[in-house]
Amino acid sequence: MANIRIPGFKFAGVACGIKKSRKKDLALIVSERPATAAALFTTNRVKAAPVLVGMRRMRRGFIQAVVVNSGNANACTGARGVRDAEAMCRAAANRLKIAPGLILPSSTGLIGVPLPMEKIKDGIRKAARVLSMDSFAAAADAILTTDRFVKIASRTCRLNGKRAVVAGMVKGAGMIAPHMATMLAYIFTDAAVGRDCLRAILKRSADQTFHCVTVDGDMSTNDTVLFLANGACGNSPVRRGSREEKALSKASEAVMKDLALKLVEDGEGGTKVVEVLVEGARSVAQAKRVAFTVANSKLVKTAFFGSDPNFGRIMAAIGYAGVPIRPERIDVAFNGVTVVKRGVGMASREKKAARVLSRPSFRLKIHLHQGEGSASVWTSDLSYDYVRINSAYKT
Amino acid sequence: MANIRIPGFKFAGVACGIKKSRKKDLALIVSERPATAAALFTTNRVKAAPVLVGMRRMRRGFIQAVVVNSGNANACTGARGVRDAEAMCRAAANRLKIAPGLILPSSTGLIGVPLPMEKIKDGIRKAARVLSMDSFAAAADAILTTDRFVKIASRTCRLNGKRAVVAGMVKGAGMIAPHMATMLAYIFTDAAVGRDCLRAILKRSADQTFHCVTVDGDMSTNDTVLFLANGACGNSPVRRGSREEKALSKASEAVMKDLALKLVEDGEGGTKVVEVLVEGARSVAQAKRVAFTVANSKLVKTAFFGSDPNFGRIMAAIGYAGVPIRPERIDVAFNGVTVVKRGVGMASREKKAARVLSRPSFRLKIHLHQGEGSASVWTSDLSYDYVRINSAYKT
Repeated sequence: MANIRIPGFKFAGVACGIKKSRKKDLALIVSERPATAAALFTTNRVKAAPVLVGMRRMRRGFIQAVVVNSGNANACTGARGVRDAEAMCRAAANRLKIAPGLILPSSTGLIGVPLPMEKIKDGIRKAARVLSMDSFAAAADAILTTDRFVKIASRTCRLNGKRAVVAGMVKGAGMIAPHMATMLAYIFTDAAVGRDCLRAILKRSADQTFHCVTVDGDMSTNDTVLFLANGACGNSPVRRGSREEKALSKASEAVMKDLALKLVEDGEGGTKVVEVLVEGARSVAQAKRVAFTVANSKLVKTAFFGSDPNFGRIMAAIGYAGVPIRPERIDVAFNGVTVVKRGVGMASREKKAARVLSRPSFRLKIHLHQGEGSASVWTSDLSYDYVRINSAYKT
Repeated sequence: MANIRIPGFKFAGVACGIKKSRKKDLALIVSERPATAAALFTTNRVKAAPVLVGMRRMRRGFIQAVVVNSGNANACTGARGVRDAEAMCRAAANRLKIAPGLILPSSTGLIGVPLPMEKIKDGIRKAARVLSMDSFAAAADAILTTDRFVKIASRTCRLNGKRAVVAGMVKGAGMIAPHMATMLAYIFTDAAVGRDCLRAILKRSADQTFHCVTVDGDMSTNDTVLFLANGACGNSPVRRGSREEKALSKASEAVMKDLALKLVEDGEGGTKVVEVLVEGARSVAQAKRVAFTVANSKLVKTAFFGSDPNFGRIMAAIGYAGVPIRPERIDVAFNGVTVVKRGVGMASREKKAARVLSRPSFRLKIHLHQGEGSASVWTSDLSYDYVRINSAYKT
């Protein structure tokens, strides 16, 4: 994989023994100056300690470094967990000679076990020594847990004649649900961006990307998406409503879309990436609700795995989505092969449709013929490996 | 299995070739006189043809016969499906010499394929010839699809000095969700019961039983629970608010509870039956919502399969249930082995808890410490076999 460099940012990914496998488990990310920051955190009411600390950090709107460990989520760890997350930041602050309040902590992995603080502090020392502009992929590797591959993406855009980079890394494979998951995503740009503008770009882009994917419908306690803009490229700060905002927004959304699809591709045990497109709903919200209900149905997802164009399960899921639909108007197609026309199944098309489902990715299109609302979500299939991975998951 | 007899009811279960396996696939149930009837149907907006016809039949409140086929759901079959369901009733009516309006049709199996009407008519002829008081189990066998075993239950009660029987059969293994599933349940009693009273007993009992189980969270297009009371035992009709109502209600709920637990026990690929009990919620509704969210989580269910007391996944599911909870108050225990105390994980109890999870059934108790609301739901685990069965399901 081509490496990614973003002016003004350094990275490190090291192993410090949190994972029994001895794989990389600590990442450190540092900007040469405090960066404008925007963040989204899990909406789960059970929030991990680093999320609670991170939310507090975001009040000031500037972040200069991020310290992430994998292998232990520091969740359900009570007051001690919060003290540990703070201590992680202090340890990094001492090494980097910056204020602890400019450091955002993240953790992912097993829940309910206190962080091994000595290992973490060792890891921070080690990481601080090897920080480099060329270690983006190493850091992206160190934030993984059950992921099968490193997930990074980048784009460039022009802002007032300056070339700016937007790049991101994401971690996540299970517990991927709308409005995030055990998902940690860090997006960086060397553009200068006004804080409100950065927030707006992040929210809009996440709504179109991270919030449109689902693997298992479970939502984690640790989800974090952080967007840092350090201004190293020398542009004048991007403001809301400007042409530059559009350019940066387009690049940011493209990066997050790449990362979101990689999440689904790496969905635990997944063998396929399926776009569920719902058209003709009375509103976008209703389209999304139908799409997510279908995309999360265990029966639909196992049928995807078996390359079975089981429109009955799809129709049943549409029917219990809680949206007022007219069954006799519904069309369902796989990549253009119609299997339901006006609510009636077309069993004769099953063989042709089964060939579509045997591909590594395809689109399931559901037309409700009730209005103009449409939405897409991306999901994976449900395989034996999902069960294997999750019935035996320990780091 | 001991056979079940209910005075005034006859049963038949035969094979007529709808299932390629040549297993029994048509059941006929006849009361010696029109029976007072109460019914619940799927709340799925996509309703199978026999459900649409059955709902119409129920307006009169009397049913004398039920004709059920398995192997084909007669769903997503458009206007033809409704004509076929009506024709099923007419065929049975001709054989039994009763009005078609007194016959309720049911179908379960594959969706989207028209009913093979010649086979069905053959089956009805065959079944009518072998109707017998002793064929309860044969009928219960003929309504099955992916079920691994016949699910029947009975109780007796005394009503004004008369002994009355309540007995039921149920079909269902996948698509089992709150508010029903690919579930067909038929409950019979030889008691005489007022129509309002029968309805009230059915609704109350179903809320405590069928509506408290979940296998995969999918809800089918064909769900039906029918309760018939034919009065053959000679009691004076049971009225609302009477002591007799209590006795009959208790017996009915016990029968439905037995059947509901058998549904979970037979949950597709399930190896365990788990009660998820939520206490200390602000209301019963909130307790139920938390219980169902935990019981439907794919991550929690795969952990059950792996005998992994993964309280992190449980805490995460509690947190996204959409109920305002206070994480720092939550206790979680498996059969009395506490694994979370005031929101903090107790990793030291994991081995002891894992031994509880290795049993074929156990209770997961979640105490929210916020109020007096409590609720139990029953669920199965998510195994390799769930994936095997559902990625390759064809009759």
